[in-house]
Amino acid sequence: MRTEGRQWNELRPVTISMNTNKYAEGSVLIEFGDTKVICTASVEERVPPFMKGQGKGWITAEYSMLPRATQSRNHRESAKGKLTGRTMEIQRLIGRALRSVVDLQALGERTITLDCDVIQADGGTRTTSITGAFIALAMAVHKLNQNHEFAKYPITDYLASVSVGVIQEKTLLDLNYEEDSKAKVDMNVVMTGAGKFVEVQGTGEESPFSRQELDSLLAAAENGIGQLIAKQREALGPIGSRIGVTLV
Amino acid sequence: MRTEGRQWNELRPVTISMNTNKYAEGSVLIEFGDTKVICTASVEERVPPFMKGQGKGWITAEYSMLPRATQSRNHRESAKGKLTGRTMEIQRLIGRALRSVVDLQALGERTITLDCDVIQADGGTRTTSITGAFIALAMAVHKLNQNHEFAKYPITDYLASVSVGVIQEKTLLDLNYEEDSKAKVDMNVVMTGAGKFVEVQGTGEESPFSRQELDSLLAAAENGIGQLIAKQREALGPIGSRIGVTLV
Amino acid sequence: MRTEGRQWNELRPVTISMNTNKYAEGSVLIEFGDTKVICTASVEERVPPFMKGQGKGWITAEYSMLPRATQSRNHRESAKGKLTGRTMEIQRLIGRALRSVVDLQALGERTITLDCDVIQADGGTRTTSITGAFIALAMAVHKLNQNHEFAKYPITDYLASVSVGVIQEKTLLDLNYEEDSKAKVDMNVVMTGAGKFVEVQGTGEESPFSRQELDSLLAAAENGIGQLIAKQREALGPIGSRIGVTLV
Amino acid sequence: MRTEGRQWNELRPVTISMNTNKYAEGSVLIEFGDTKVICTASVEERVPPFMKGQGKGWITAEYSMLPRATQSRNHRESAKGKLTGRTMEIQRLIGRALRSVVDLQALGERTITLDCDVIQADGGTRTTSITGAFIALAMAVHKLNQNHEFAKYPITDYLASVSVGVIQEKTLLDLNYEEDSKAKVDMNVVMTGAGKFVEVQGTGEESPFSRQELDSLLAAAENGIGQLIAKQREALGPIGSRIGVTLV
Amino acid sequence: MRTEGRQWNELRPVTISMNTNKYAEGSVLIEFGDTKVICTASVEERVPPFMKGQGKGWITAEYSMLPRATQSRNHRESAKGKLTGRTMEIQRLIGRALRSVVDLQALGERTITLDCDVIQADGGTRTTSITGAFIALAMAVHKLNQNHEFAKYPITDYLASVSVGVIQEKTLLDLNYEEDSKAKVDMNVVMTGAGKFVEVQGTGEESPFSRQELDSLLAAAENGIGQLIAKQREALGPIGSRIGVTLV
Amino acid sequence: MRTEGRQWNELRPVTISMNTNKYAEGSVLIEFGDTKVICTASVEERVPPFMKGQGKGWITAEYSMLPRATQSRNHRESAKGKLTGRTMEIQRLIGRALRSVVDLQALGERTITLDCDVIQADGGTRTTSITGAFIALAMAVHKLNQNHEFAKYPITDYLASVSVGVIQEKTLLDLNYEEDSKAKVDMNVVMTGAGKFVEVQGTGEESPFSRQELDSLLAAAENGIGQLIAKQREALGPIGSRIGVTLV
Repeated sequence: MRTEGRQWNELRPVTISMNTNKYAEGSVLIEFGDTKVICTASVEERVPPFMKGQGKGWITAEYSMLPRATQSRNHRESAKGKLTGRTMEIQRLIGRALRSVVDLQALGERTITLDCDVIQADGGTRTTSITGAFIALAMAVHKLNQNHEFAKYPITDYLASVSVGVIQEKTLLDLNYEEDSKAKVDMNVVMTGAGKFVEVQGTGEESPFSRQELDSLLAAAENGIGQLIAKQREALGPIGSRIGVTLV
Repeated sequence: MRTEGRQWNELRPVTISMNTNKYAEGSVLIEFGDTKVICTASVEERVPPFMKGQGKGWITAEYSMLPRATQSRNHRESAKGKLTGRTMEIQRLIGRALRSVVDLQALGERTITLDCDVIQADGGTRTTSITGAFIALAMAVHKLNQNHEFAKYPITDYLASVSVGVIQEKTLLDLNYEEDSKAKVDMNVVMTGAGKFVEVQGTGEESPFSRQELDSLLAAAENGIGQLIAKQREALGPIGSRIGVTLV
Repeated sequence: MRTEGRQWNELRPVTISMNTNKYAEGSVLIEFGDTKVICTASVEERVPPFMKGQGKGWITAEYSMLPRATQSRNHRESAKGKLTGRTMEIQRLIGRALRSVVDLQALGERTITLDCDVIQADGGTRTTSITGAFIALAMAVHKLNQNHEFAKYPITDYLASVSVGVIQEKTLLDLNYEEDSKAKVDMNVVMTGAGKFVEVQGTGEESPFSRQELDSLLAAAENGIGQLIAKQREALGPIGSRIGVTLV
Repeated sequence: MRTEGRQWNELRPVTISMNTNKYAEGSVLIEFGDTKVICTASVEERVPPFMKGQGKGWITAEYSMLPRATQSRNHRESAKGKLTGRTMEIQRLIGRALRSVVDLQALGERTITLDCDVIQADGGTRTTSITGAFIALAMAVHKLNQNHEFAKYPITDYLASVSVGVIQEKTLLDLNYEEDSKAKVDMNVVMTGAGKFVEVQGTGEESPFSRQELDSLLAAAENGIGQLIAKQREALGPIGSRIGVTLV
Repeated sequence: MRTEGRQWNELRPVTISMNTNKYAEGSVLIEFGDTKVICTASVEERVPPFMKGQGKGWITAEYSMLPRATQSRNHRESAKGKLTGRTMEIQRLIGRALRSVVDLQALGERTITLDCDVIQADGGTRTTSITGAFIALAMAVHKLNQNHEFAKYPITDYLASVSVGVIQEKTLLDLNYEEDSKAKVDMNVVMTGAGKFVEVQGTGEESPFSRQELDSLLAAAENGIGQLIAKQREALGPIGSRIGVTLV
Repeated sequence: MRTEGRQWNELRPVTISMNTNKYAEGSVLIEFGDTKVICTASVEERVPPFMKGQGKGWITAEYSMLPRATQSRNHRESAKGKLTGRTMEIQRLIGRALRSVVDLQALGERTITLDCDVIQADGGTRTTSITGAFIALAMAVHKLNQNHEFAKYPITDYLASVSVGVIQEKTLLDLNYEEDSKAKVDMNVVMTGAGKFVEVQGTGEESPFSRQELDSLLAAAENGIGQLIAKQREALGPIGSRIGVTLV
């Protein structure tokens, strides 16, 4: 049995608190167990220089951890004067994943920035961030739609993410920090509401893994993501009603 | 009357939620109206190089705002690669203020870092941070004391801070962002439980102020800080019982 | 008695040498005892991006110390690749203080940058800088006025600054480095020719101070600033004749 | 048919030139078609601070592209003053992948740094780098072994990498730049000589992919990597003879 | 005799391989003995801001060494976040030297950037870089001329560079790394095909040198540069036919 | 005739004011016409890491210009966060030049840092800096010698520097800024009291120069440096008495 009494294929308790920020166009405090992330969506009516004049929008993400989000205090990246490779990798992943379910043409020339700030970390901060950022994004697009209805709704599907791993021949879903440290194989998966893969990132730094293990990991992730998307639907309610529904 | 129906000399509602972080030695979410700051205290059993070998401890602070803590999104200082002058000024102020009520000799060779992360800003982020950081500091010192009782208790007094300002000849207590933008004079005051001044920082960039106005501002601040310290006492309860009580 | 045979309420010898730079629109070498600062004013016919199109001007300041301005050599901030918090705090203070006596509308869309470079430091570098920068600013505005008379003269009043502090229950005026190191309370005050306060920055890091001490410090500062402004008037002579005189 | 007349499941011509650097402990110029990477292995008899005193070694990698490795010239990261997220992500991947086939305990307290410098880029620079870096690493470990035979040989298996992608429903092996720009799905796979997975990184930013597509991609990668490892064996010859052979 | 059996006034073997890069407008791999430099010329149809609107072109250079170009591995400047003084000095020298034989007016508003990347270093990397960069530059200008014949050919003369030095009273031509380390005087000379000096940089850090030694060094350099220009002419062949020939 | 009524081979007026800084071990304000540089020498009883344990000392230099040292204001390098190539090149030159007349063994394990801060620039700032820095260095070594007589005096000879150039076929000595802008050839020469060359840096960016011109430039420089060293001797008086005199 797992430290928290969980089954191998069981998610940690998921909590979604919406509208936690009075300024942001979308905001959520999302919790996967003791991992807590504030996600905000900020809309700006312009696109970065490399996107200008294409009539398309842009979705980007930034990720950070508060210094004491972890067991021992980390130095702030702002004080060090640069982002770590880990931070850059994670925020590139979040942005890329979200763009896979957004029709940038339909969005129009505007940028939505998703800020994912980890206020407490206990494993799975990137998967929690993606799952929460999707909700904040959906809130912001809904708000834009209220002001001026989109001809084609820019969000094409739901999106969530979960981690899976292998510990002592067992396939575990949604690893906490302690489990993550012990896992021989570590995989993060991002999937859509339609059950398609957006990102599959598996690493066997400690020990390469077989095709059979890979299949088992993918199955566990698919199961977990299905549950997470159900929670997103519930939290968003009518705000999510037009996601993936295209007017022709 | 003020935008929120407050009296000129009335504080905004103050909320103090303790133990918001499972790792930190002290943690609090403090709110002055819509200004919300997470303060954590982290204890490390070593001092910075310039303090080594003196048998004394050190108290330092770091301050940051989440990008969407404000009306429009700010760039992250970590992405810009450097701290702004405003951030440096505020974190130097917080650290200096807290050290004024700590006996560094009594603390012994350890460092307590207070992280003040503003998750929503509506004026007074530095005064809210100081007031909350004191609580997180008191929690951390209390925890250290439980493990090994200090001969002399290192916290010598309570400490809180409030802003005051002048708008149209009126002296206002605890300005929100809108009021702060309109104020001709802007002052931040830090005081102790014994009613002494630790910091007085008044600026009349828009319009220099008279001695009479200064006296009126100081009186309003003294009044507000008294109320804030009462709230700190209430929140800390027995944790604060040895503050300022020296064993001889 | 003080180390230099001064009275408690006595300024150090003040020396003002004007036109020390052949290129700058205003320049002065100002000395408060052994503290020596070169102040230059540079006029540019444009404003920073955040001020554009408002028809208003801008006053800003930069501050630096030569590496061997002090007892032991400091590393250059240019070599370290970033400004210290202390430098940022001081240059923000200088700029803010000067702006309080400038009518930015009357100045028109141009920027005056005051560079304060400390070539020798013996306490009070920020107060010396403000007092000297005001003179360089007045010279530059006078020169602008010669080319094209301002309808409304942009400098609305004189401005000077001094430090005060408490050592062994005594209130001292204009502390040198040695005194500054010993002072329990340290305060910098900026005032106008009309006797109004522009900045009051008092710190009791070592020991909080009473209201009575604060009153005594403010009185000493008021007295010192009066003398400094008299010296500024003398140095500027006819160059200062239109300061604070508005044509209607 | 593909632009270069290749079959869907055909690698580009692979060229491996060893000992291209007279100083490095291992060096190779590796070419996958027009993608050309210089890989050098540098041995240092010390480990990074976080590894000290554990009796274990460390393998790390750095990646860079010459400014004109690409169609249009890129700015140097050294001139920009920071590494891009892409560079950091790639060099973290290379290091992690190589460590999966190294027994750090057997290596002893030393660091081997693999520098992968792309002198011409035509798609697949990260997979070419990993495949070439493995050869340089094997050369360096062989040289160490000649000086002092390892009790347990530190390289536990062969390792190579290839890219796969989907264009118009077809699964392509080893994409060049033009193909990579058109691919809806893009996947990089790293595998060992024993046919185990070390890294699986698949991205469907443009269009999420099905489980069936994923299976097809993995099969193509497995096939390509088998061929690449055969070429590594051929190039290394006797230098590779002890890889994966443990003395008990 | 010299370590490699060379005469005092003998160059190392010079190898020039052209068209080593499929994207660059000009490219060459140049070798002075074991010193190997990749030089590419990149043409951009714009000039830097400070040159805009003058109807003139610009020639600039960047220089870098791969980390393991040398005996022991160097840290990457991109990872350190800044260029060393040595790198800046060398790339300023290369650009300045090349501009001396280019008629910027005749070139028209475009920039040619010469990238000199040292893949193996054994002394004389800056002289090898200048000599190779001239060839890449000539290739790029030739290519521009093919598209649209220049009224006046922008390259006014050949240009090459060599190092000379003094070891034990002997004047040596083209020092390798070992000789360079022992030399009391170290001089780099850049000359044109017409035998004029473009740069003379002599340093006697270890021991100041007499006028007689200086004359001897200049004579040796003149001799070596003549030979290098002969090799450039041979390598460029018809590509160099219009260099220095002005249509009137 | 030259703008200032000078002869072609005439230096500008040279002024040397010693002991301008109360903290530095050596200090001088040196003026070549309107070029004014503050040079200070700072002694530290340790050497940089790369010199440790060799029983030898180190001489290094830093160079900077105040923002308004020039006609139009320059941005501070500290605010830009990095040194320009020009600054690095100049400070490397100053340090190298001074080391050529110092016996580092005789100096012992200590570092002398020469700070050259240009407070007004009118051409020749690097030659003025070298000439002034030598004086500050001599003062510092003299002071060290007073505390503890050196067995062998560490300064082996005098050292000064001057610029020369060619304008309209004339060879000019000690160019001011206006002349420097017009010169086709620009050369900086550093020589010792014994008339030996330490640095010869000639550049013909605008127009390559003949051997005959080079000879004429060197002769003019030799003449000018002779005069500068006479002024150094006069300024130093008895402080310079042991320079170049070795006790055996």
